[in-house]
Amino acid sequence: MVRIEPKNKRRLLQAALGEVEADLALINCRLVNVFTGEIYPAVVYVTEGFIAHVETEELEGPYAAKEIYDGQGKYLIPGLIDSHMHIESSMMTPRNFARVALPHGTTTIVHDPHELANVYGVEGVRYMHDIAEGLPMRQLVDIPSCVPAVPGCENAGAAFFADEIRELAGLKRVVGLAEVMDFYGVIHGDPRMVEIIRAAEDCGLYLQGHAPALRGRQLSAYLCGGPSTCHETTAADEALGKLRAGMYVDARESSISRNVAAVWEGVRNSHFFDTLTLCSDDRESDDLLHEGHLNAVVRKAVSCGMDPVQAVKCATIHTAREIGVAHIGAVAPGYSADMVLTEDLRSLWADAVFYEGRLVAKCGRLVVEIPERHAKLEERNSVRVPELSEEDFVLRAPEGKTRVKVRVMEYISKDGSRTRCIEEELPVEDGRICLGEEMAFVSVVNRYGRGTRSVGIVKNFGLRDGAIASTVSHDSHNLTIVYFHPQDALAAARELAEKGGGMTAVKDGKVLYTLRLEVGGLMTCLQAEELAQVAAQMKETERSLGLTVPSNPLLRIVSLALPVIPEVKMSDLGLVSVAEQKILPVFVEE
Amino acid sequence: MVRIEPKNKRRLLQAALGEVEADLALINCRLVNVFTGEIYPAVVYVTEGFIAHVETEELEGPYAAKEIYDGQGKYLIPGLIDSHMHIESSMMTPRNFARVALPHGTTTIVHDPHELANVYGVEGVRYMHDIAEGLPMRQLVDIPSCVPAVPGCENAGAAFFADEIRELAGLKRVVGLAEVMDFYGVIHGDPRMVEIIRAAEDCGLYLQGHAPALRGRQLSAYLCGGPSTCHETTAADEALGKLRAGMYVDARESSISRNVAAVWEGVRNSHFFDTLTLCSDDRESDDLLHEGHLNAVVRKAVSCGMDPVQAVKCATIHTAREIGVAHIGAVAPGYSADMVLTEDLRSLWADAVFYEGRLVAKCGRLVVEIPERHAKLEERNSVRVPELSEEDFVLRAPEGKTRVKVRVMEYISKDGSRTRCIEEELPVEDGRICLGEEMAFVSVVNRYGRGTRSVGIVKNFGLRDGAIASTVSHDSHNLTIVYFHPQDALAAARELAEKGGGMTAVKDGKVLYTLRLEVGGLMTCLQAEELAQVAAQMKETERSLGLTVPSNPLLRIVSLALPVIPEVKMSDLGLVSVAEQKILPVFVEE
Repeated sequence: MVRIEPKNKRRLLQAALGEVEADLALINCRLVNVFTGEIYPAVVYVTEGFIAHVETEELEGPYAAKEIYDGQGKYLIPGLIDSHMHIESSMMTPRNFARVALPHGTTTIVHDPHELANVYGVEGVRYMHDIAEGLPMRQLVDIPSCVPAVPGCENAGAAFFADEIRELAGLKRVVGLAEVMDFYGVIHGDPRMVEIIRAAEDCGLYLQGHAPALRGRQLSAYLCGGPSTCHETTAADEALGKLRAGMYVDARESSISRNVAAVWEGVRNSHFFDTLTLCSDDRESDDLLHEGHLNAVVRKAVSCGMDPVQAVKCATIHTAREIGVAHIGAVAPGYSADMVLTEDLRSLWADAVFYEGRLVAKCGRLVVEIPERHAKLEERNSVRVPELSEEDFVLRAPEGKTRVKVRVMEYISKDGSRTRCIEEELPVEDGRICLGEEMAFVSVVNRYGRGTRSVGIVKNFGLRDGAIASTVSHDSHNLTIVYFHPQDALAAARELAEKGGGMTAVKDGKVLYTLRLEVGGLMTCLQAEELAQVAAQMKETERSLGLTVPSNPLLRIVSLALPVIPEVKMSDLGLVSVAEQKILPVFVEE
Repeated sequence: MVRIEPKNKRRLLQAALGEVEADLALINCRLVNVFTGEIYPAVVYVTEGFIAHVETEELEGPYAAKEIYDGQGKYLIPGLIDSHMHIESSMMTPRNFARVALPHGTTTIVHDPHELANVYGVEGVRYMHDIAEGLPMRQLVDIPSCVPAVPGCENAGAAFFADEIRELAGLKRVVGLAEVMDFYGVIHGDPRMVEIIRAAEDCGLYLQGHAPALRGRQLSAYLCGGPSTCHETTAADEALGKLRAGMYVDARESSISRNVAAVWEGVRNSHFFDTLTLCSDDRESDDLLHEGHLNAVVRKAVSCGMDPVQAVKCATIHTAREIGVAHIGAVAPGYSADMVLTEDLRSLWADAVFYEGRLVAKCGRLVVEIPERHAKLEERNSVRVPELSEEDFVLRAPEGKTRVKVRVMEYISKDGSRTRCIEEELPVEDGRICLGEEMAFVSVVNRYGRGTRSVGIVKNFGLRDGAIASTVSHDSHNLTIVYFHPQDALAAARELAEKGGGMTAVKDGKVLYTLRLEVGGLMTCLQAEELAQVAAQMKETERSLGLTVPSNPLLRIVSLALPVIPEVKMSDLGLVSVAEQKILPVFVEE
């Protein structure tokens, strides 16, 4: 149970009563009241990191406070709360993420360390939780519910059952069970899922859902099963259906999926938005630096026609209620003094950001020192692959064949992750399969010491030359390589094994460029500015190999091994049929 | 932690999916959606007492359900939830209260067994909780926080500290800590109050407040101290101040205090009402029978200008959120199937009431059998007073005086409970004080075997003749008697001691009429219809003794000993100065 409370409550009470000086008086601001929707001049008294009193009458002082901050007539809103996100998606560590998100006015995030959990299990979740200690940002944690995403079709670095949930629920900033993706498991009462949900409920956690495209009876069943929120809504009618069913709709605007417009289109005629919140899900460093974090999501909602005060409300108190945490999400007595001053409620650039009553950012820049803090886990090389040779990346035809029918994973479009399974007859040379048009080889190598690996063929992936590889490969994050020549695959694998993970591009057996992600093969210790530069260089290199997908080329490979997106995906165990949840042989037997 | 969940979740999921027949299909209704504020035609499928699915498209059937209920085009709203009330105020037992409130559409109450706690302590709370087992109404319990109301100035039947709170928090329908009345204790950090609040927070309970007339810095301090709700709001500006401060405002319309109009006047221009709820607090049998229960409060709010859908929302899902209980307060998948059909959203007479999917009332009549259930405690005589004589009710002057100056408790008006302390010089005859104009004697006799009692004088109480007495006497419920002649007082005391409590009227040493309240001296085992008749007779008898106060005459005496209402009150320890929290001598020393 997360309790937001002052260390010295007695002093807070005395400051509220005016018996002692407050620590801070924030004067000359226009308070946006998320309870009444009003905007009015106010003086906010802060003590012990909490709001002691909001004065609406005696605005001219004198102010019984040690420090005065002049709001210069700007709007004062509560610190923004992101209802669902993954820090790992920023490729930054939790502390560096805070450095870049705080200046945008985000003071609380509800994050799901799902990626690192797949790499390091309970230890990974503990790291993500513990490393945030002492940050001037509230990083609340939802415990990953589906590790691995599809048991039996892939080997991740860990597997979570009810026991892991119970263990992690004891951590002090844990609030929920994270996105329950195993929708089939929930609605059909799969014992493992039922037990995980039961454990979470017993521990008093809220159940975050994950219900893409769910409607009608399936949506009803999912809600009856327990989860009460969803950030995967992409269509207007879907949004209205979920709102009507009492589901929290966490409207998402990530670097990849931009759904706020569609959600708003669906719900704009609703009279109430109590269960509408905003979230960023996955945001990369470049977007975080230049577009913003949750303030960018609010801005998007407002640009779609949502009332700015309503949008702020959705991004603050609604989320606090959704996750069941009291005393955050409003500028009111007894609430944590997390506040943002902004000149314009529509663009929502943060002029000043306060966390627990302390000024932490001004004009888009951090103004507090965030002390370095490191853990042993950051130094560990998570990429544990066996000794590999070129031969390991050769797709050999069955003995004696000159042509062979192969199951190929074909991307449906240049964007997106959906594929279909096609069968193609391909020629064989020296026992090796020869690629057809628009094809490349793909290999997924287990990187958790299991020794499992697979080789197959992908079509319309987009790569034209060389090889690219990544240890960011949802959700198991095995080493995933797309290539034409085994020597390039080997070079890529060796490079990432040596560097402890990341993304690399190879040509003619030589590494062209590597984006090193040494923390669990998912995150770098670089800060946002440096990371953005390195990432830009990596993108450029991938584009130079012909990977000219419309969106971020780095993201093309990261969902290649995600066996929850139809129709087929590659895992370290082979070609996975998503609907059947089983492994298909690469060669079609005749 | 209160969990609202089906016994057989698997079956609920299957019914949601349409894989098995639902238990019930409620067809042909206009659903009032409290999430979106929309009203639209729907079919509601119920299984295992929960809503499995709400169909908005295939309305014409066929319906995969064992039973069909035709809503005849009426509005379907969630079962009403009363955010704060005392069952004892109805003078009925919890089961009989359910019998009369259910037909009005109240399916959940949050009640505070404060009165019986003052009589029987932990055992009293357990009785109120346990006796509700198996009722077709959800009687959630808040644990009384202030037993006794004013420690040191009165002897109640029990005293609660943090340990009692922790013990009672383990009961399965306990959700909160009840109205924290000791406002001074909260804002000044009184150790007992701090520990009680801490215990409640540790047990995950919400903190129900009690903050009459609180504004500005005192309100801020109270909120910083923990409590987050208030049902004592009586003025418009007070209501707005509380809503702005993030406090839940539980607008009250009781038999005694009618505050909905004032609250609405204050908040009507607010854009949001997320933290506005409705409550009945204290309703007597007559009102329950003829005016209604929470539906009467909704009706009042609507008559004041509140949108009917908003009012229904305030009386359902808002309260569920306030008390932190999921899956009640809406007609949506996964919610308890507590529902009301009504022809008119403005008057809100309940045409049909469903509790956990079962039809429990129709056209204002209960249609289910509520099995009798009794506890030993109901048979116990709680009135433990010493052997009394006429002399015990004589107010004797100090030796040798012929005139003496006396502190008199004077009522300010014929209505209400406020008094002031005046000093009057009165003649003495045979050593006895003689009453002046508009005066009567008052005696409060401890009825918990403590042997303490007091005699004093009250002015402007309203009685003209005989004596009246009551064991309903907030909050300690000691035996309280107003009289002119000691023989009448003695007769009244003996009558109530023999009957196990209640209210009685005496003249010329003879009992005129007694309303017997044998359960803890507070409640009868009679049902509402009989009780209303008996109570009417009792009122009539009191009026015949000259007690012609504008409101219910039975309520005149019940706050005479309530030492939280200024300026003075009588307790079993003597005349209490409410502001100073100390006992004042009856005779002024000169």
